[in-house]
Amino acid sequence: MPVNRRDVVKGVTLGAAAMTGAAPASAAAATAGKIVHHVFFWLKNPGSAADRDALIAGVRGLGKIAVVRGIEVGVPASTEARDVVDASFHVSEMLVFDNVADQKTYQDHPLHKEFIAQCGHLWTKVVVYDMVTV
Amino acid sequence: MPVNRRDVVKGVTLGAAAMTGAAPASAAAATAGKIVHHVFFWLKNPGSAADRDALIAGVRGLGKIAVVRGIEVGVPASTEARDVVDASFHVSEMLVFDNVADQKTYQDHPLHKEFIAQCGHLWTKVVVYDMVTV
Repeated sequence: MPVNRRDVVKGVTLGAAAMTGAAPASAAAATAGKIVHHVFFWLKNPGSAADRDALIAGVRGLGKIAVVRGIEVGVPASTEARDVVDASFHVSEMLVFDNVADQKTYQDHPLHKEFIAQCGHLWTKVVVYDMVTV
Repeated sequence: MPVNRRDVVKGVTLGAAAMTGAAPASAAAATAGKIVHHVFFWLKNPGSAADRDALIAGVRGLGKIAVVRGIEVGVPASTEARDVVDASFHVSEMLVFDNVADQKTYQDHPLHKEFIAQCGHLWTKVVVYDMVTV
């Protein structure tokens, strides 16, 4: 794939280059080996906006953990309903780490444990997908 | 949440600010309203590295579609095995769009349809999660 301005822009979306400003050789090279940790929560009380907001605030706080290189928090989007789309979750967090060791550091971090202790009663189901970028 | 250098760095990971270099008021403000479209594929022939690589190449090509603001392609990471972690997928793509309309444009784009026509025989199951960032 030729390197053009658009590739470079995309390359910094999740890469360390975002912090250094270095131009990556390609989008893939900029981000390969990162861990994208995507967590989906189903609330115990789906009708409670207060519970949803408390969980959103809780997951947002996870961004304070030093090894977290990127964080996005979301709710189901109003994209087209299709058989393959699972829009049943209520809150989602996507975290980016430099490597598996950093993800483990996050997993065992006191702030992460505090989040589970404080917010764990809000959800009834959690599904996690961890991918390493290629 | 106070705005500090680290918040700003994180704020550009998925936001339009990454393209303009503008400093966002906060990480949330930089990215709220983006669509994160995360797709998980299960291969028909999980043991075939050729099939996996063909699918990886196929999904990577989707980044050429103009409305795609960010793309990451991955495979399961070697993070700790836990009950909540679904590591059964084989290939994953995460795309970022500015809004729901752009995601629909992508969905209907000839390059996306070509990808499905050329690679659809490779997978047996697809699960899609669309979140809007808050």
